[in-house]
Amino acid sequence: MAVGTRTDGRVERGNRTRRLVLRRAMDIASVEGLKSPTLGRLAEELKLSKSGVFAVFGSKEELQLAAVRAAAEVFVGHVVNPALAAPPGLKRVWRTCESWLEYSRGRVFPGGCFFLSVTAEYDAQPGPVRDAVAQARSEWFEFVRRVIESAAKRGQLRPQTDPAQLAFELIAFLELSNSESLLRGDADPYRMAAEAIRTRLRSVAADPAELDAV
Amino acid sequence: MAVGTRTDGRVERGNRTRRLVLRRAMDIASVEGLKSPTLGRLAEELKLSKSGVFAVFGSKEELQLAAVRAAAEVFVGHVVNPALAAPPGLKRVWRTCESWLEYSRGRVFPGGCFFLSVTAEYDAQPGPVRDAVAQARSEWFEFVRRVIESAAKRGQLRPQTDPAQLAFELIAFLELSNSESLLRGDADPYRMAAEAIRTRLRSVAADPAELDAV
Repeated sequence: MAVGTRTDGRVERGNRTRRLVLRRAMDIASVEGLKSPTLGRLAEELKLSKSGVFAVFGSKEELQLAAVRAAAEVFVGHVVNPALAAPPGLKRVWRTCESWLEYSRGRVFPGGCFFLSVTAEYDAQPGPVRDAVAQARSEWFEFVRRVIESAAKRGQLRPQTDPAQLAFELIAFLELSNSESLLRGDADPYRMAAEAIRTRLRSVAADPAELDAV
Repeated sequence: MAVGTRTDGRVERGNRTRRLVLRRAMDIASVEGLKSPTLGRLAEELKLSKSGVFAVFGSKEELQLAAVRAAAEVFVGHVVNPALAAPPGLKRVWRTCESWLEYSRGRVFPGGCFFLSVTAEYDAQPGPVRDAVAQARSEWFEFVRRVIESAAKRGQLRPQTDPAQLAFELIAFLELSNSESLLRGDADPYRMAAEAIRTRLRSVAADPAELDAV
């Protein structure tokens, strides 16, 4: 019994350490990249014991991969779930873009989108971290494509609209707004991205009035 | 005379060191970011004396700023000059985009566009490097905007086309193709970007036939 309690306490401490370390690692990575948050630095900044942090994450790579997974969860919570709360069709396509802009503009991660920071860092460096980032990104592209496809199946898009191509274009607008806003230090790029998305969606909508409210 | 020759030799060696170091620093930065190429590493990889490298670049930040300037020159040579060789108007807008796609696809820098790598690395980190990157990027946006404006002045764009907005959209397509191609390891994103650009330019062209050849 006493042993059981001790074990539970240890597990709980481990989980708490895990949460704290991952949150801090994601925040640092969004600003400085995923090579910056070393286990030693995280332990020091969070005033945790080094051995405790090393017990939870065996290596820097393990921490990096866990941070990518944790960031994907944050992303789903801030972008995917709000999009799914909108009715399927063109309105959900718009809501998907709008949630992303809000996620970036709201600085859910202090350095803007975690994945854009880490994509640029790892896109030319083969290995498990790049694979994890590529996987997360390809799931996101796939999500946007399916949301568009569902609008097409409802007859809301003009025939010949290619969902994968349109997904590429909308994501391009989103991503540029993130880096431009960070560099310029203002929110104007988000307005430009929203304008670009509205124009593009109106041009493919079977009934542009469907987008009047956005 | 003997002294003069010695001095010239030293200057020449300094210039050669400068060129070698900057080229290698840009290549490393495009893959790993601009924090990676330290003066010590560059000296070692290029088999140059450390003191020689330190004599040319006093500090890492000096090297970083010189690399940004050198990369801007490479960019002008590969993107801006070929664009200026096209006749002004819509054809030059297209040629600007096409040159950029070629610059990225051709891996002029092994890790894709130098500026995209370094923008994502520094966009959330204030300081001289971010300022230099922001400056180079803003000159590029300004160039694209002016090329579009010149097409508008020639009556080649539909009225109400906003050159800054259109520049944002075209650049968004270009930039996404770079990271996606690096991550996926294929050239398909360049095809998608070119398709997006053609569609967008046709939609704003006063006479879409102007773009028939592209």
